[in-house]
Amino acid sequence: MNRQACIIGGGVIGGGWAARFILSGWHVNIVDPDPEAERKIAEVMENARIAYPQLFDSPLPEEGQLRFCDDLSDALAGASWIQEAVPERLELKHQIYAQIQAVCDKDAIIGSSTSGFTPTDLQIGAARPSQILVTHPYNPVYLLPLVELVASSATPPHTINRAKEILAGIGMKAVHIVGEIDAHVGDRLLEAVWREALWLVKDGIASTQTIDDIITHSFGLRWAQMGLFETYRIAGGEAGMRHFLNQFGPALKWPWTKLMDVPELDDQLVNKIATQSDEQSGKFSIRELERIRDRNLIGFLTTLKSHSWGAGAFLAECEADFRSKSAPPAPQISSELLSTHSATVLPSWLDYNGHMTEFRYLQIFSEATDKFLALIGVDDGYIAKGVSYYTVETHIRHLAEAKLDEKIEVKTLLQSHGPKKLHLVHEMYLSDGTLIASAEHMLIHVDRAKNKACPAEQPVQDKLGLFQTAHDTISKPDYIGRHVG
Amino acid sequence: MNRQACIIGGGVIGGGWAARFILSGWHVNIVDPDPEAERKIAEVMENARIAYPQLFDSPLPEEGQLRFCDDLSDALAGASWIQEAVPERLELKHQIYAQIQAVCDKDAIIGSSTSGFTPTDLQIGAARPSQILVTHPYNPVYLLPLVELVASSATPPHTINRAKEILAGIGMKAVHIVGEIDAHVGDRLLEAVWREALWLVKDGIASTQTIDDIITHSFGLRWAQMGLFETYRIAGGEAGMRHFLNQFGPALKWPWTKLMDVPELDDQLVNKIATQSDEQSGKFSIRELERIRDRNLIGFLTTLKSHSWGAGAFLAECEADFRSKSAPPAPQISSELLSTHSATVLPSWLDYNGHMTEFRYLQIFSEATDKFLALIGVDDGYIAKGVSYYTVETHIRHLAEAKLDEKIEVKTLLQSHGPKKLHLVHEMYLSDGTLIASAEHMLIHVDRAKNKACPAEQPVQDKLGLFQTAHDTISKPDYIGRHVG
Repeated sequence: MNRQACIIGGGVIGGGWAARFILSGWHVNIVDPDPEAERKIAEVMENARIAYPQLFDSPLPEEGQLRFCDDLSDALAGASWIQEAVPERLELKHQIYAQIQAVCDKDAIIGSSTSGFTPTDLQIGAARPSQILVTHPYNPVYLLPLVELVASSATPPHTINRAKEILAGIGMKAVHIVGEIDAHVGDRLLEAVWREALWLVKDGIASTQTIDDIITHSFGLRWAQMGLFETYRIAGGEAGMRHFLNQFGPALKWPWTKLMDVPELDDQLVNKIATQSDEQSGKFSIRELERIRDRNLIGFLTTLKSHSWGAGAFLAECEADFRSKSAPPAPQISSELLSTHSATVLPSWLDYNGHMTEFRYLQIFSEATDKFLALIGVDDGYIAKGVSYYTVETHIRHLAEAKLDEKIEVKTLLQSHGPKKLHLVHEMYLSDGTLIASAEHMLIHVDRAKNKACPAEQPVQDKLGLFQTAHDTISKPDYIGRHVG
Repeated sequence: MNRQACIIGGGVIGGGWAARFILSGWHVNIVDPDPEAERKIAEVMENARIAYPQLFDSPLPEEGQLRFCDDLSDALAGASWIQEAVPERLELKHQIYAQIQAVCDKDAIIGSSTSGFTPTDLQIGAARPSQILVTHPYNPVYLLPLVELVASSATPPHTINRAKEILAGIGMKAVHIVGEIDAHVGDRLLEAVWREALWLVKDGIASTQTIDDIITHSFGLRWAQMGLFETYRIAGGEAGMRHFLNQFGPALKWPWTKLMDVPELDDQLVNKIATQSDEQSGKFSIRELERIRDRNLIGFLTTLKSHSWGAGAFLAECEADFRSKSAPPAPQISSELLSTHSATVLPSWLDYNGHMTEFRYLQIFSEATDKFLALIGVDDGYIAKGVSYYTVETHIRHLAEAKLDEKIEVKTLLQSHGPKKLHLVHEMYLSDGTLIASAEHMLIHVDRAKNKACPAEQPVQDKLGLFQTAHDTISKPDYIGRHVG
């Protein structure tokens, strides 16, 4: 498949799509008549380049190319994914689909970012209705993985599957909504909250700040990891969901909502909200708020990834997929230092000086040790037998600093080994070749149940022997065996 | 003030309140006629004891005592906070308030956990209406910090302030809602979403799993850190909130909600939801779901705390407050090793063997170094002058393992120093006195702008001199100056 996408409309949403595709190795052509589009997209790209790679512990594919096109036919050339992100006017969307379908590949997918229209609405008058889907993302598109995928009866299943696959390739989880309704699912729920919140502000029950504080200190935290139903299932306790529903039932009869009517968003209410919002958030620029939001979202998503839960479970899958596609060939046994590990310096790794903080060096060296162990056959299967290597001694020298976003590579020397012992030397380099730190580690092979040293299994010792023969030909660094003081 | 609370009703909510108070050093008496109450509370306490301490890097106060009482008067004795958490029946609540007010301290606060009733409703017929407030928490009460605090016109401001203060002391953020309405604010918003979600399931648009996936992969993540209004402010981009409102306005006219009516929660709908929920979450027990939820919430809250944002900003304040109240006296210069740092082993610090992972040792030793530096006057103010100590060399010995929840103490020896140099030795102990690791660090005093060694300022050198004189009388451990190999 051709990794070429075309995006029609370069606002915040179109820009987010562009960032996803480009950072996943696709080439992207953008068409937008707005003279400001290029600047706007560049800003989204800048945020995305900082944020998106922080979701993954594996390197991303090489970036694709971004090209602004004046001409739609030019932009569509070779595109296998066409994403429409133009304003919410049905007749405008119909016009654009007609222009697209006149020239595009008939197997390309045309995804609409519409928040409101159903696929059946969108397909009216189309040359090939089956080609048009709803693929509705959420802002910030480069971090939130959700795409609401809605198809009509005209859409063949293989189109839905192909769309899901392509979206997974750019780190997005397509949730297929089986029924077609205006505003799909997410925006229905959001709209319900929005109307209620407007009443609360209008009637002076609570300010925008109070409402936001209430959301962020209670159910917002819940919903970042379990939805409405799973949360309520827990609330039902041991008696379960049915019990909860029977308890909750009567509340539906109470006058707990004003949503029987729609508040008029007149000048007075607009003013009230805008003024309260200025008081609440005006001390930050939109740009600052974006960065703060992204930093928080990265924290949540990586937390969830470490537990393989919710949006993090999906991220973990994407990462495994990236790894399988990008895994470098296993290092060969040779008379050079082994390249065991690489990493990029993350914001959370920095100290107040903007340098990578001390203990992160050891974190990286430990990961390099784990990778070396995997190379000699000490992997999950081996460890499951009840034996493992434990580090008993470590010596680190700090020679220079690493800063944000710098790429780091660790090279490893097998200094010596015995049946129960392993003496490793790691060197940490920046991409310009500067040696910034070195580490020596002594590891002991232990029987974990007895918590006692024991010899490594023969295949591991054999593998170590091969590395040792090769590494004995390397001239040893003079700092080996150095002590502090 | 008397740190004695009384909780009426021992369900999930009452249990959560009990856990908050007890883990914050309050004594708690509970009254609940349910014969199962003791078991239920014990289960909530067990979850809370695992989860709540993980929110803080500082030690919590000593636990208060929990006592189950058969008699309300007995339970109320000496209570300065009385929390009502009984079922949502107004006449029941009125009866209980009458019994409470007949015996309780007239300065005690009576907080109601009601989701629905207004304070004016609750105060009807009360002996002292001004004593009764709405203090509505969110489940899990021991992790989510929010309390919706609603008062009536009968409530004097000093009562509101005292309630806020007491709640802050148990790690809860009381958000004062100025208007009285049924269901306050949070449950109004939740109710709106709930009704819409019921329609979506009933009409077969989406299953409970689909709806939950959509929430957890999009706006749930957004709302854990910025609320409805702040999120939309960003969506408005540079043009701001007013622009966003004007754009969004028309959507309110569209038929994007079915909330003009209330779905009947009949047997058929209850069955449909319960069945879908079983399919979605039935593979986990409620207990497992609780633990998963808590682990995720701890991750989010500590992420936010590290950025001092949203619910995390509040946590950081609580922690600073705990610290200021519990800070041990600054270590004295004496001829014993200095106790510089203590910590508790967190779940995220463990490796697959259930032992504290390698690099966390260095993290703890680094914190001990920072604390020693603060003692010799190298604090934020000193560092702001453009000078600092950088670690150039580290040697760690691992002697035994640390496991989950174990308390760790670091003791420090000033081995030697010069105008530009500092040689520190740390020893890490378990609470039973086992030495589990030691570290030697060489630090250099640097001019950060020039990135060059320079002498420490005289007051720092003087302080070091005092420590050196004292520490020179300590017999030096024999591992000092040891090398790997």
